[in-house]
Amino acid sequence: MVNYPNMKKNHKILLNSPTSKHYTAHRGMSLEEDISLSNDYYLTSNRAVIYKKPTPVQIVKVDYPRREAAKIVEAYYKTPSTTDYNGLYRGKYVDFEAKETKVKSFPFANISLHQIEHLRRIIQHGGIAFVIIAFTTLNEVYLIDASYVIEDYYHSQRKSMTYERIRSLGHLILQGYQPRLDYLRIVDEVYFKEDE
Amino acid sequence: MVNYPNMKKNHKILLNSPTSKHYTAHRGMSLEEDISLSNDYYLTSNRAVIYKKPTPVQIVKVDYPRREAAKIVEAYYKTPSTTDYNGLYRGKYVDFEAKETKVKSFPFANISLHQIEHLRRIIQHGGIAFVIIAFTTLNEVYLIDASYVIEDYYHSQRKSMTYERIRSLGHLILQGYQPRLDYLRIVDEVYFKEDE
Repeated sequence: MVNYPNMKKNHKILLNSPTSKHYTAHRGMSLEEDISLSNDYYLTSNRAVIYKKPTPVQIVKVDYPRREAAKIVEAYYKTPSTTDYNGLYRGKYVDFEAKETKVKSFPFANISLHQIEHLRRIIQHGGIAFVIIAFTTLNEVYLIDASYVIEDYYHSQRKSMTYERIRSLGHLILQGYQPRLDYLRIVDEVYFKEDE
Repeated sequence: MVNYPNMKKNHKILLNSPTSKHYTAHRGMSLEEDISLSNDYYLTSNRAVIYKKPTPVQIVKVDYPRREAAKIVEAYYKTPSTTDYNGLYRGKYVDFEAKETKVKSFPFANISLHQIEHLRRIIQHGGIAFVIIAFTTLNEVYLIDASYVIEDYYHSQRKSMTYERIRSLGHLILQGYQPRLDYLRIVDEVYFKEDE
């Protein structure tokens, strides 16, 4: 799995490991950090309310010297049952997963069946669902509607989506200073076009 | 603060403490457990996609014998910047906080300024925002639109909302077997009435 679990702690730990390549190596930022900064920007500029969910952790043992000073001393990462990001934009429920890949494809091993099923439900219930895929070696980030990923996940002969397919079905996200990744511009284009 | 952080682990730890009273003491269930079971029911019956967010944890130290076996050995509970629950219902973004109180009022000390501000933003961006308040000694659970709570939080002379005020502005949630707490019935009434 690429860059999972997405914890800052892990980033540090993995810095010297072969899996630590970031898609924007020159800035030393991970996809997760770029999306978080973009979400902060969208929030403070009052454009959207989108957050990353905390990483689910199974807590096994807590030291309780005082109620206010609970110290967790044994815990494990849990497999998330939903996607990492959700929120509210232009009155609509928005839900997405963000993944980095070092190869020129998006391997389905990078996304769990739970997450695919979650995205399917979101579409079914009238929400906006997509996947953000960063090709780290190309320094390109795409937004692709979840329906394409779900379709290929279940029906493709391949165990991945090719770069070419993502490029043709998805949309390149502009990288900049603020926001780092202007993915809501693509959301406007793809999901709100008829309103404009 | 009542029953916070809302971790199962803490429930266990607090079982013998004076803060461990549950609003449905005879069933031994906490408000959080009842809402989780209700959300599970709504999910499997394909009625809504609503989840509790994982409790935010600041991870300080991880033992990494193998990548797959990461063991968190030092971590602390973080103050949540948003509410505990959000999701998608009838095409709408839904967001809420759930709190137990043992007294016949809802003390504002039970909810953080961050959460109040989050609920305010949700309303501003066109989402559905409310608070579920369980009066543990009365075994009554109310859903109240977040706007009332926000208004009183900022403008009331009191440091709490009285039971009477919550009863008159809010709506009693039916308790049952499945779902335990049928809060979406109230959501239908309050937010979708004109559609029916």
